[in-house]
Amino acid sequence: MKLVGFEADKKLHLGLVQGDTVIDLQAVDPKLPYDLAEILASTNGDLSSLADLAKKAPASAHRPLKGLKFALPVAKPGKIVCLGLNYMEHVKEGRYADNVPKFPTYFLRVISSLTPHNAPMIRPQASDTFDYEAELALIVGKRAKHLTLQNAYSCIAGWSSFNDGSVREWQKRTTQWDIGKNFDKTGGFGPYFVSADDVPAGGKGLKIECRLNGQVMQSDNTDNMMFPVAETLVDLTKAITLEPGDLIITGTPSGVGQARKPPVFMKNGDTCEIEIEGVGLLSNPIVDEKI
Amino acid sequence: MKLVGFEADKKLHLGLVQGDTVIDLQAVDPKLPYDLAEILASTNGDLSSLADLAKKAPASAHRPLKGLKFALPVAKPGKIVCLGLNYMEHVKEGRYADNVPKFPTYFLRVISSLTPHNAPMIRPQASDTFDYEAELALIVGKRAKHLTLQNAYSCIAGWSSFNDGSVREWQKRTTQWDIGKNFDKTGGFGPYFVSADDVPAGGKGLKIECRLNGQVMQSDNTDNMMFPVAETLVDLTKAITLEPGDLIITGTPSGVGQARKPPVFMKNGDTCEIEIEGVGLLSNPIVDEKI
Repeated sequence: MKLVGFEADKKLHLGLVQGDTVIDLQAVDPKLPYDLAEILASTNGDLSSLADLAKKAPASAHRPLKGLKFALPVAKPGKIVCLGLNYMEHVKEGRYADNVPKFPTYFLRVISSLTPHNAPMIRPQASDTFDYEAELALIVGKRAKHLTLQNAYSCIAGWSSFNDGSVREWQKRTTQWDIGKNFDKTGGFGPYFVSADDVPAGGKGLKIECRLNGQVMQSDNTDNMMFPVAETLVDLTKAITLEPGDLIITGTPSGVGQARKPPVFMKNGDTCEIEIEGVGLLSNPIVDEKI
Repeated sequence: MKLVGFEADKKLHLGLVQGDTVIDLQAVDPKLPYDLAEILASTNGDLSSLADLAKKAPASAHRPLKGLKFALPVAKPGKIVCLGLNYMEHVKEGRYADNVPKFPTYFLRVISSLTPHNAPMIRPQASDTFDYEAELALIVGKRAKHLTLQNAYSCIAGWSSFNDGSVREWQKRTTQWDIGKNFDKTGGFGPYFVSADDVPAGGKGLKIECRLNGQVMQSDNTDNMMFPVAETLVDLTKAITLEPGDLIITGTPSGVGQARKPPVFMKNGDTCEIEIEGVGLLSNPIVDEKI
């Protein structure tokens, strides 16, 4: 099942994608929450009721996918837990090769740092070191603590594409990265939520690519994660209870702009695309902040 | 004005404190949100309506403060931005003296890591290196971006006490601290929200203390912040839009357990108190996680 958030009549909607058509689920049931996190929480991660709703949809609930004003696939995610240094070639390009982490390196993002498919990723006035990072995003479907390697996948509702836009100068001005990862509207997220049953278990074996103005900047495969999804879930849930609608952003491959010689940073007018096999193509224009 | 969150009849309430009495504001207006973040958002930070409500309270809305089951003073804070390394003596004890940060060091906490006054702070099974940190918490009242030193205080709704409970082993197993700062129910927050007009501007000049089982472990004054509140707000809002109900946790003084010889960590049965002059005394029992 493939879902999208979108905006119409100045309201947020949730839609089910069938080919090049979107079925507006609020047009079938006006009481359905537009926030996928809220739906997942109320159904314990079971989204079959949405497929049933879509079957009842009148022709008037069908909209063309083309021209849709996309919103976030999860309108109000809870926690946004991100991994750094999860692909070895990226560890090496970042000069961490002498000190390869033995554990997943987590940081956090806040909701105000997100922006949907086709909406601008904002290059702030504070710095011109705005970099891209292609990442596979996991959406949690069920409450989970102390997962094991055997049951780790049970908490996964589905997947999406993510551009972990990073203001490098601020990320590195102290030891802690969070501030550089949380500028307003710097993280692209979407366009689709693709349910776990439509993606290989654990998000394995997916080609992941970043293109800047059409040029391939990152190209790898999710099989190359140093800490695969199951291991990460086991480790993370020793500390934190996951809740429906939480996001886990699984780290970026090599090829980031800051590691290039000379460095490449995104500027006003650029277009950055993240494409993950079977999950979706996320595209964002880069626009300078206006104060 | 002094407010408390509390639980009664299995529901969350907001109360206005007058001496040793709490006026249950939901007993006066059942439609009033229990979440201070929601009230601040709807009033643009103006809480005078709560004082008016309290004046109308019948005698039946009065409860004794003693015996109250405290809840978080802000039930659903938005962002929780924390500062590390904001008191020079703490920088020195943490062996950062050769590399004193030139900018505030930010990290983030998530709501699931919080616990109210008198409720347990949970020492996880994953590690026995559970440490205290006394901190002054700022509650944001108004949306704010690109604040200046002249208008920075305008976004402050009020203040509270915070115990930034930290699982040191996990905080330091990679370069990024967040995971050690976000174990479930490790951060004490409360008991009171004290409005900005009842505290010196910018939270300056307040004695701040941590006591473990009655013994003073940290004792300092908020005047000794390396990055005072106004400077922090100016810096932070170059990156992030603050919203009503967001928290900023302003860093801890020296005396933390991990820097002691031998190190002191909290264990099951301990009681940890954070007291900030004019803001409140936060007390939490330490309880081992049960799986």
